[in-house]
Amino acid sequence: MTSTTAPRPKPRERVLDAAARLFIREGVHAVGVDRLAQEAQVSKRSIYQHFESKDAIVADMLTEYGPRVVAGYFRPEDDDRTPRERVLHVYDALHRAAEAGDYFGCPFVNVATELRDREHPAAQVAQHFKGELTAYFERQAAAAGAASPHVLAVQLTLLFDGASASAALCGGTPLAARLAAETLWDAAVSAAR
Amino acid sequence: MTSTTAPRPKPRERVLDAAARLFIREGVHAVGVDRLAQEAQVSKRSIYQHFESKDAIVADMLTEYGPRVVAGYFRPEDDDRTPRERVLHVYDALHRAAEAGDYFGCPFVNVATELRDREHPAAQVAQHFKGELTAYFERQAAAAGAASPHVLAVQLTLLFDGASASAALCGGTPLAARLAAETLWDAAVSAAR
Repeated sequence: MTSTTAPRPKPRERVLDAAARLFIREGVHAVGVDRLAQEAQVSKRSIYQHFESKDAIVADMLTEYGPRVVAGYFRPEDDDRTPRERVLHVYDALHRAAEAGDYFGCPFVNVATELRDREHPAAQVAQHFKGELTAYFERQAAAAGAASPHVLAVQLTLLFDGASASAALCGGTPLAARLAAETLWDAAVSAAR
Repeated sequence: MTSTTAPRPKPRERVLDAAARLFIREGVHAVGVDRLAQEAQVSKRSIYQHFESKDAIVADMLTEYGPRVVAGYFRPEDDDRTPRERVLHVYDALHRAAEAGDYFGCPFVNVATELRDREHPAAQVAQHFKGELTAYFERQAAAAGAASPHVLAVQLTLLFDGASASAALCGGTPLAARLAAETLWDAAVSAAR
């Protein structure tokens, strides 16, 4: 007989899954290693066999979890969308995430903010993924012939970060951010014409 | 002989000062009441005579500290600046704060984000002060005859929050935010003409 259930994830994976659930929802400082061990059903000793420190768990969690977050916002860049549609899709996806409830803000910004240390390994991972968002925006802006693709991309990233913070803090849905993105985009693209 | 030194602040005041220093710099969860007591040179017992709980300290700290933060960004509304200049001054002040180093991001956003609870008394205080920024922007937008003063004000607030997070996380100075604010402002004000 073949078992129809998936094999149980290995301890390291279980710890990272538990870390993603707890750190994203409650914050890094609010969750201790004991709680993580309990949630992952792994002994504390086993945790320290797989990870050097709690700091390393935070960094590895963001590294593993990051691509899934990013995938929710990016569109394949070879489909038939226009660059403008790809950019606005990011804000639409944020709007949907915020509407769905249980939205805690951008996990990269939240973790890095809480750590208050730009050199922390997890803060470096967070900066990497924020950089990916800016690079995605910049590719779209360059494809559309925007006047200064990098400046526009940074502005769109700031807007995204402000909107995700506001969605988490006040429960506001970020429609105003989408409108602002349209205004910034159209000003930069028409200025280039 | 008259003493030239100011009288020592009372315990409640000392606790709130210590809370502002530590919570803003290190975060709410990273600082326990023991540490607060030590920093304020107040006994733990005395802390609990003045405050119901750590949550109450966080809320009272933001309530006391908030107006000082806000004062750094707002300009008297009866001087000879134009509404546009008043709005851009906010971003210039943020730029200066970020350049000065030791900038940890918007304390209201940071505290509320870390608490992950919109109903927490401190989160409510944070929302109040963010609302004051939006209201300030909205008064300027209305005075300039912007098309939708409230929408523009919300957009400018999102931009401010994104820029302050970015300044804290990456050390970037928020000049791109100022440029974006100009674009959004000019689009909204010229649309109304």
